[in-house]
Amino acid sequence: MEGKLFRYEQVAAKVEESISLQKLQPGDKLPSVRQVSQELNVSLNTVFQAYSILEAKGLIFSKPKSGYIVNLPKSTPQQAKAKQEIFLPVSVEVTGMATAMMKNAKENGIINFSILAPVNEMLPISKLNKYVSAALNETRNENYQYPLVDGHPGLLKQISRRTFDWQKSIDQANILITNGCMEAINICLDAITKSGDVIAVESPTYHGILQSLEQRGLKALEIEIDPQTGLNLDDLQMALDKNTVAACIFMPSCNNPSGACMPEANKMRLVELLGKRNIPLIEDDALGELCYQPGNYPAKAYDKYNNVLYCSSFSKTLAPGFRIGWLSAGKYHKEVEKIKFGSNISTNGVLQAAIAKYLESGQYEKHLRKMRLALQVQMLKYIQAITKHFPNGVKISVPQGGISIWVELLHTTDAFALQKEVLNKGIGLCPGHIFSTTTYFHHFIRINFCPAWNFKIENALKAVAKVLKQKN
Amino acid sequence: MEGKLFRYEQVAAKVEESISLQKLQPGDKLPSVRQVSQELNVSLNTVFQAYSILEAKGLIFSKPKSGYIVNLPKSTPQQAKAKQEIFLPVSVEVTGMATAMMKNAKENGIINFSILAPVNEMLPISKLNKYVSAALNETRNENYQYPLVDGHPGLLKQISRRTFDWQKSIDQANILITNGCMEAINICLDAITKSGDVIAVESPTYHGILQSLEQRGLKALEIEIDPQTGLNLDDLQMALDKNTVAACIFMPSCNNPSGACMPEANKMRLVELLGKRNIPLIEDDALGELCYQPGNYPAKAYDKYNNVLYCSSFSKTLAPGFRIGWLSAGKYHKEVEKIKFGSNISTNGVLQAAIAKYLESGQYEKHLRKMRLALQVQMLKYIQAITKHFPNGVKISVPQGGISIWVELLHTTDAFALQKEVLNKGIGLCPGHIFSTTTYFHHFIRINFCPAWNFKIENALKAVAKVLKQKN
Repeated sequence: MEGKLFRYEQVAAKVEESISLQKLQPGDKLPSVRQVSQELNVSLNTVFQAYSILEAKGLIFSKPKSGYIVNLPKSTPQQAKAKQEIFLPVSVEVTGMATAMMKNAKENGIINFSILAPVNEMLPISKLNKYVSAALNETRNENYQYPLVDGHPGLLKQISRRTFDWQKSIDQANILITNGCMEAINICLDAITKSGDVIAVESPTYHGILQSLEQRGLKALEIEIDPQTGLNLDDLQMALDKNTVAACIFMPSCNNPSGACMPEANKMRLVELLGKRNIPLIEDDALGELCYQPGNYPAKAYDKYNNVLYCSSFSKTLAPGFRIGWLSAGKYHKEVEKIKFGSNISTNGVLQAAIAKYLESGQYEKHLRKMRLALQVQMLKYIQAITKHFPNGVKISVPQGGISIWVELLHTTDAFALQKEVLNKGIGLCPGHIFSTTTYFHHFIRINFCPAWNFKIENALKAVAKVLKQKN
Repeated sequence: MEGKLFRYEQVAAKVEESISLQKLQPGDKLPSVRQVSQELNVSLNTVFQAYSILEAKGLIFSKPKSGYIVNLPKSTPQQAKAKQEIFLPVSVEVTGMATAMMKNAKENGIINFSILAPVNEMLPISKLNKYVSAALNETRNENYQYPLVDGHPGLLKQISRRTFDWQKSIDQANILITNGCMEAINICLDAITKSGDVIAVESPTYHGILQSLEQRGLKALEIEIDPQTGLNLDDLQMALDKNTVAACIFMPSCNNPSGACMPEANKMRLVELLGKRNIPLIEDDALGELCYQPGNYPAKAYDKYNNVLYCSSFSKTLAPGFRIGWLSAGKYHKEVEKIKFGSNISTNGVLQAAIAKYLESGQYEKHLRKMRLALQVQMLKYIQAITKHFPNGVKISVPQGGISIWVELLHTTDAFALQKEVLNKGIGLCPGHIFSTTTYFHHFIRINFCPAWNFKIENALKAVAKVLKQKN
């Protein structure tokens, strides 16, 4: 590359070659524009043009302040959208599998693809430690006393501030702090449903939601989603026409397990559709902050009907173990306040205050930007490895956000048997069985791609692949 | 007192005079035996004999390692045990008053006789702070990750150790950590009852329990208690004969609000009675560690039928704001584990680990001894002041433990109106209305006697007394 003049097509071709030879792999960062310009002795503009071509081809993508990253090859086998038409409300019976899963994952040596949690390396631990200490000493050790039912005023204020750019922002008087997002969802369910009611959920949906329905004797009406764009609103409308639905629980941003994100226009239409029918929407936004693309808002941001019971948490972005979540129930606020008080009085004040102080310090947004990119890179590396090692015919839904990949195995594979078998090898993963009351996903697995990418992780995925190949 | 020889009757008479002249008041500590012996130039034995006479007369009482303390005068008007025969299961409707109570108490300047919580001065805060920091750094920041459903293994172990001297001790595999005792009770209720069931409760009982019944559509069967000795088992037996009872929720040690403690023999009979009938007992032992007399065990300690669902917490002894409680559900363990997981996955690990470390350090028992004595002294001072300032005819149940006094006002007084009126003067107290579904206690108030005794507190009680006198 000694001083010879490259034109932008030549630069692009050179990078494309590196990608096709796998010198550059999905998730890898490209050399910076400045670096390439110096190395090849071409203008900055030439490199920009070259990268733009590659971006237009979908071979790479860019992130503000973070440069260009290698994308997945087009040949990655994507999950087919099978028309399933579920629509029959059924009683829910998800097994106690999830509890066992967590116990297994906690045991030493387990490679955790099962529990959906960010690894410590992604969390701002030393900063949070500092704020926990500050919280303990806050105003004459006030946090040793019973906190207010609604929550620590400092945290309520900070959460409210984060909604200032929403079309309909949330006043801090309408927020209530919970022990994580799951408690928020349960409180909302208790506020607006009674045993026997039919609740519309996504298919697949988070197993915790199905467990909550089961516990309350509620029926699930499953609405199939697209693994990229989430709920199909025509399907939803049809299902609502055919059934008397008491409430919906959806994850419009970053569906768990698939990582699907509804386009903003669809979220607006969803709010409209349910608002007009007066069917409350419980929005599970636990992963909403982890959409990879900017410009994502929750459905609650468009909630002109005051009909969305919004639930979120800091478990996926700051500290799963702190168990700090929150809800905003709109017109049901008094009711949720009463239920929260009755269920455990209020949420511990120390960890609330610590998170409030962290948010106040203004570091959260920067942390989220960093974390989203780190996750996206991880996701690309995992998908690349799965594509490479898993048997032919396996399909993957490339997530739009969140921290899990939804993998469709061959129809002959039983995911539950697979889970048991790889657990013996020290690998935890989540069988599709628990994400639906139907049998549609019994050959699916959810893979948490948070564990930092390295040869050990690749070997674990290879070990799963080996079991799959033996079975088929 | 210059060198003259006193005999023990003379020493006793001298102390008795000081008490009757109110130079020494209820809750005051007597000078030590050594001190009196030196001052009066008499033998140690003479002083011991003098103090023994006074103790036999009930004028003073002794505490190991803490010496002698002045008791209440015999003339203190005790609450009459009115035979009420409640026994009719009723639907529960306790108002949202409690939520408002907490909000009010949190506002600046409120003298808090309403919320049942130890003041910070009684808590080992600097030690706990140290252990919170240690917990944050524990084993590669493990407590940032999702804790196990059952709880932090270190805390489970420490709790189990504290039951080693029970007739039936609790294995750590049968313990589950909750967000406070109220959550423990709710989980137990969800494990063993269904809407419409009849639950036997004490009358009066903790308002949180009535709220839990209300929330679940359960019916309360109130069993009147004696303000000193708690449940009358013959009454209970009769009530069980007349009604189909699905479960009982009782506080055998330190009933809230009255501070009644059942004698150990009665606890054993209670376990027997319910065990034989196969009616599960949910035991609320939140205040059980605060019995003033030694040798108190929970009913669970005698649970040979594995029929007691035991609920307790560290909220009344270490840190209300940490919201760390626990339960041991005997044969219902798998069921409560499932419910806990579904409701909020698990309890935050940081504060669990901090309490575990504190217990490990061996300081808890000493702290409890100190705290029990401090509370008993506070109780005596409060009762003395109430007796002195409140109108004639007001009756008091002298608590056997815990942190509240149950005061019967004149029948013409409406406690709810009183509460509203004194709230305007910055004084919070708890009207009897919320401790029963009946109207029997509408002229009762519960007074939390934790705020450290001083002239401000006495003035607040005087202000309440003034309102009472104006009303009558």
